Amino acid sequence: MQFTVPERIRIVLVGTTHPGNIGAAARAMKTMTMNNLALVAPKQFPDAAATARAAGADDILARATRYNSLAEAVSDCVLVYGATARTRHLPCPVLTPREACAELFTQAGDKAGVAIVFGREQSGLSNRELDLCNKVILIPGNADFSSLNLAAAVQIICYELYQYVFARQLPATGSGQASEPVTAEALEQLYEHLEACLTETGFLDPDRPRQLMRRLRRLFNRAAPDQNEYNILRGILASVQSALRTRSGSG
Amino acid sequence: MQFTVPERIRIVLVGTTHPGNIGAAARAMKTMTMNNLALVAPKQFPDAAATARAAGADDILARATRYNSLAEAVSDCVLVYGATARTRHLPCPVLTPREACAELFTQAGDKAGVAIVFGREQSGLSNRELDLCNKVILIPGNADFSSLNLAAAVQIICYELYQYVFARQLPATGSGQASEPVTAEALEQLYEHLEACLTETGFLDPDRPRQLMRRLRRLFNRAAPDQNEYNILRGILASVQSALRTRSGSG
Repeated sequence: MQFTVPERIRIVLVGTTHPGNIGAAARAMKTMTMNNLALVAPKQFPDAAATARAAGADDILARATRYNSLAEAVSDCVLVYGATARTRHLPCPVLTPREACAELFTQAGDKAGVAIVFGREQSGLSNRELDLCNKVILIPGNADFSSLNLAAAVQIICYELYQYVFARQLPATGSGQASEPVTAEALEQLYEHLEACLTETGFLDPDRPRQLMRRLRRLFNRAAPDQNEYNILRGILASVQSALRTRSGSG
Repeated sequence: MQFTVPERIRIVLVGTTHPGNIGAAARAMKTMTMNNLALVAPKQFPDAAATARAAGADDILARATRYNSLAEAVSDCVLVYGATARTRHLPCPVLTPREACAELFTQAGDKAGVAIVFGREQSGLSNRELDLCNKVILIPGNADFSSLNLAAAVQIICYELYQYVFARQLPATGSGQASEPVTAEALEQLYEHLEACLTETGFLDPDRPRQLMRRLRRLFNRAAPDQNEYNILRGILASVQSALRTRSGSG
């Protein structure tokens, strides 16, 4: 069965210098079922080098939209992520690709446009362009060799988006959203509920909590539960508390 | 803080036709802190195109080992994965990159060599070469456009390996193994324990189990708990059962 990354998720390439990189990015997108490409002031496009490197993904190049500025390219998006492989002083929250995917599928509305923005090969995004991003995606890797080229960075992000859809078997048609959003606030409530429950069972000693809650947070953050799974987890905790209280009272 | 994928994990390129792809693969490896590259009967190597595409990862090319056959290249490895982007009749279990990473970090010994093998650009791995692989890694993606090039496939696998190390903050030196292995058998025991526990609290009705256990399996498989986390989860379940029994008895 084939799954599809929702078309509302747009890849935006800003000021790309080499047209070959635009083609390679289109190919990377298509390998992961994505097709919504926007180009902001590319140096040279269309171009034979772009078509050659697209290697069969020229349909994506043909339908790519062009803009003069990043502001125009993301004007209809509710969430804008700037992708970078380099750490630097950043004005906004920094997420890994996996964190960003979990967030954009669950926290944006299921019709809402989302943009993931990639800067110029040499100089990245300007500070003014970064100001248009709600958050930054930093691809973790070798700090001493952050030489990820543009197409490789696009490949990684598109790969992560597709894996999210694939792992959760989201429907190929429709919103591509598993269920209602799980907000960061709701996750906090889950951890509080879990902590209260573990205190009741005696597994957690509030006077000697050690690393327990931190470890559990890391585990569940990694799993990035969707709303169905979240409801199941909350239901389990409630059932444990209820069973404990019933048996204490009814003995 | 910099984390490092353990050097015991080797990337093996079999019969690569274009030397530029060897260079691009080395670059992809280095962006994710990997440096153990083996080449099996490359068509043309060393080559200026390889060095050019390595873009600063030429140290990996310089120390790459060369073999005449895949059997020699993996003779010291306890686990051998064949990577492919195409579904076909395969003689062995098929894993996603993420599943393979979780497995190779937890199920191989912490000193054991592990090889991830990539076939020829056009024809992939021969059946005889696939027979040398314990398992196959299939990169999920667009079934109608499985045109992932060699360097992109290497990039995705190396990215996943590094994310595993990074997410778990494995030490940069040493084995790179989080803790003792969690076997598939142990995971089954966790799910049985969870099912028994949920039946005791009343959350799971054994006569109407619906999709509950399948959903919980999917959630925890996605998180791929390490041994520490596994022990915590088993401990939580035991504490719930113990608390329930104590209160039933002591009332």
